[in-house]
Amino acid sequence: MIYVVLVETTNSGNVGSISRVMKNFNFNKLILVNPKCKIDENALSMAKHAKDILKKAKIIDNFNELFKMNFDYIIGTTSLLSTDYNILRTPIKPDELSSIIKKNKKIALVFGREQSGLKNKEIEKCDFIVTIPTSEKYPAMNISHAAAIILYELAKNQKNIIDEKITYASGKEKEILLSKINILVEKMQFPSETKKEVQKKVWKRLIGKGFLSRRELFALHGFFKKLGRK
Amino acid sequence: MIYVVLVETTNSGNVGSISRVMKNFNFNKLILVNPKCKIDENALSMAKHAKDILKKAKIIDNFNELFKMNFDYIIGTTSLLSTDYNILRTPIKPDELSSIIKKNKKIALVFGREQSGLKNKEIEKCDFIVTIPTSEKYPAMNISHAAAIILYELAKNQKNIIDEKITYASGKEKEILLSKINILVEKMQFPSETKKEVQKKVWKRLIGKGFLSRRELFALHGFFKKLGRK
Repeated sequence: MIYVVLVETTNSGNVGSISRVMKNFNFNKLILVNPKCKIDENALSMAKHAKDILKKAKIIDNFNELFKMNFDYIIGTTSLLSTDYNILRTPIKPDELSSIIKKNKKIALVFGREQSGLKNKEIEKCDFIVTIPTSEKYPAMNISHAAAIILYELAKNQKNIIDEKITYASGKEKEILLSKINILVEKMQFPSETKKEVQKKVWKRLIGKGFLSRRELFALHGFFKKLGRK
Repeated sequence: MIYVVLVETTNSGNVGSISRVMKNFNFNKLILVNPKCKIDENALSMAKHAKDILKKAKIIDNFNELFKMNFDYIIGTTSLLSTDYNILRTPIKPDELSSIIKKNKKIALVFGREQSGLKNKEIEKCDFIVTIPTSEKYPAMNISHAAAIILYELAKNQKNIIDEKITYASGKEKEILLSKINILVEKMQFPSETKKEVQKKVWKRLIGKGFLSRRELFALHGFFKKLGRK
């Protein structure tokens, strides 16, 4: 269970906006640490259909109260680029976080203040920190964008997320289509065997990069079946 | 070269916000198709240090003008979940897009209207579409969040992005550390050989999941060197 924790956020629009993206990715536990803004019209407007998350957000007085809430992991976020010699701020990346996180643990994902992020003494208390790789020229992201990206990565491993309405072609199905195409290529006239091999390779790449749905794959089957008859 | 194209955006804050996240990920070409808002104070405020991108955004009158601009690929985005039988809307995911995209091509990444997205006739003209996997309960993302996530994925392959200030430990370096730990484990007293093997496995996993920087790795070397002396 992942809790999104916002520390001393000043812009209520950001709180609303983060509620929305939480709902987009199936997260619903929001904690506000000493918020510097109210849950006002702006927050509700940005939350759109996630007003429920916003309204039931838990408000706590200070950062240290987090440590009385029995979290298994408290993970900080920062946009500050670090150097090798600052171990405190040696971060992992969002996709790395996604690969190590465990669903049955109680996890706090903590975002700092819009202007100044988390303080060093807060970061020290976190188990580790996550940083989104950004341009060196302008590493400071909007807090709701940062939240969107990290929650997107965490949601990749969820079951109840995702484009399940599309059934993608399996490796086996692509293979069957390709063997049909290869038979066709064999029947066709090409100046050399090499050219035929090139054809087969091109088709393999094309089908591979196409990320075909089963529906699309069946359509191509129909196409090549018709061609094969001639 | 990737151009971000916003079609008939109504909220100037979104245009500013997208400019900012473009700069966060080293993109700088913005095209506004028939914008329904002005580049006002709100847009400039949300853009923060990316006002340059906002100010030099190219404005065109309608969607079809895109096709006179010699793009190699025009890629649409949509939040609408599709079914297998709607080939028009069979999307690929942002990480799949990132894996197939070519840097030396001129690519338009098109985001539709905040309320209604891209029209079917616009989607038809795109080479293909990208959709972010979201909760079925609330798939509609804020346009700037959607842009943030797709640009984040596209930036993963860029050279001039990323936490390059941190040097991560190489596979070889981790191996050397682990062999040092294994020697230590061998010297230690355990009730059975099996327990020793378990120890070695645990250390391998721990070092693996730690995503160690070289600095951290060297620190651990020091630690085990000291232990080894006893």
